[in-house]
Amino acid sequence: MSEWIRATGAAVRAACRAGKLTGPTPGLALGHVQANLVILPKDWAFDFLLFCQRNTKPCPVLDVTEPGSPEAALVAPGSDLRTDLPAYRVWRNGELTDEPTDVTRYWRDDLVSFAIGCSFTFENALLAAGVPVRHIEQNVNVPMYRTSIACKPAGRFSGPLVVSMRPLAPHLAVKATQICSRFPRAHGAPVHFGDPVAIGIRDIDKPDFGDAVEIRRGELPVFWACGVTPQAALMQAKPPFAITHKPGHMFLTDLKDTDLEGE
Amino acid sequence: MSEWIRATGAAVRAACRAGKLTGPTPGLALGHVQANLVILPKDWAFDFLLFCQRNTKPCPVLDVTEPGSPEAALVAPGSDLRTDLPAYRVWRNGELTDEPTDVTRYWRDDLVSFAIGCSFTFENALLAAGVPVRHIEQNVNVPMYRTSIACKPAGRFSGPLVVSMRPLAPHLAVKATQICSRFPRAHGAPVHFGDPVAIGIRDIDKPDFGDAVEIRRGELPVFWACGVTPQAALMQAKPPFAITHKPGHMFLTDLKDTDLEGE
Repeated sequence: MSEWIRATGAAVRAACRAGKLTGPTPGLALGHVQANLVILPKDWAFDFLLFCQRNTKPCPVLDVTEPGSPEAALVAPGSDLRTDLPAYRVWRNGELTDEPTDVTRYWRDDLVSFAIGCSFTFENALLAAGVPVRHIEQNVNVPMYRTSIACKPAGRFSGPLVVSMRPLAPHLAVKATQICSRFPRAHGAPVHFGDPVAIGIRDIDKPDFGDAVEIRRGELPVFWACGVTPQAALMQAKPPFAITHKPGHMFLTDLKDTDLEGE
Repeated sequence: MSEWIRATGAAVRAACRAGKLTGPTPGLALGHVQANLVILPKDWAFDFLLFCQRNTKPCPVLDVTEPGSPEAALVAPGSDLRTDLPAYRVWRNGELTDEPTDVTRYWRDDLVSFAIGCSFTFENALLAAGVPVRHIEQNVNVPMYRTSIACKPAGRFSGPLVVSMRPLAPHLAVKATQICSRFPRAHGAPVHFGDPVAIGIRDIDKPDFGDAVEIRRGELPVFWACGVTPQAALMQAKPPFAITHKPGHMFLTDLKDTDLEGE
């Protein structure tokens, strides 16, 4: 795995394409933007793009392909979204039907692909600034929760805001807010901190996705909009066909984390 | 006119709806966000939304209606986009065919409306911070230019970036950059300053739209992405049917300028 830490996004994509890399991507091609992937038939694409447009914190769109094109031309010229991720999930009517490492055989001329920003970008910035990230320290997946905050619906898509949580002492929560505000296309500033019940989370120790992490004395849970939100909306809408990345198995772009700073 | 300066966005919309207000909107309901309007048939809406998504500086989307709905539900609940602007332009195949004050008779169940951020928002912030805005001082329309910078195309939409220009002394250009960076959904920071030829503008005294303004000794022309860009793309794409606002006759939302700050 460590051989890929200093690789480029293109090198990781090529390794996926050659079938040499089928595992999770955290820590790979460090400093390069990783993206969530959602692929839908064109007749669902407008509603989904509108859902993202109306809910930019959980769904910051980095690239949308032309219908039928498997190339993320803006963020990864030359890429092939059918082969360049380590693993995929294939969905029919909201049900998971396959988890392949290549979706070439599923490709259709009417598919539109969405690359959506991911929290790895701001986590790299937090770590670089000396702000600890608990789930990385504990070597588990980030805890994620469905909230009572409704996303703004769009056409056939609706659903709750899903958040990720990182525990921080107050002065580090302030620092994290400043740092993450620089990355509006990677979920941006936190949406909440403190009382989990205020946003409809009943038990902080039982996340809906990912793993629980320790909250230490003097720390507050800090909550960020999460890229699982569009997947939750997708599962709720139950389109006849969809492809996503397998969780943790992201799309490596050519963008640098710093490219997502500011506007 | 002055009676409307301190009005709410809703009051201006109601006056338009009642036929009492048919003139330009600069200075009306000061502090409320004004928006460009583009209305297209649904089968053109995905391409246009994607064009905006790929070109957020000239096309910062504030709201998109559900197909057939004339209400901008996010930014102006209760609004009726068919009546609530002072004046409209109706286009067929890229040709201007009518300039009515009400488009109810043109309404169709497949129309999707886009409200797009406008420079008035950051101009208010500039003025409040003591940064002069020359075309307001000179009481003319802002000078706008087609540039050699191509927008990122999307489906049937493509075209040049159109910019607006405000001359500023360097220290005020720096201040303006800081202020406008706070408003990514109102065109954000400048895209260029100094040499007009570098972005394909041959004669700064002959704008493609609006009026020329004086550039004083020690000042540089400072260029911002402009909301005329999507209109230029629209005219180039020549959809069979489209409605826009009449230039300067914008849609008043319920948003405050400060709501557009930050993310």
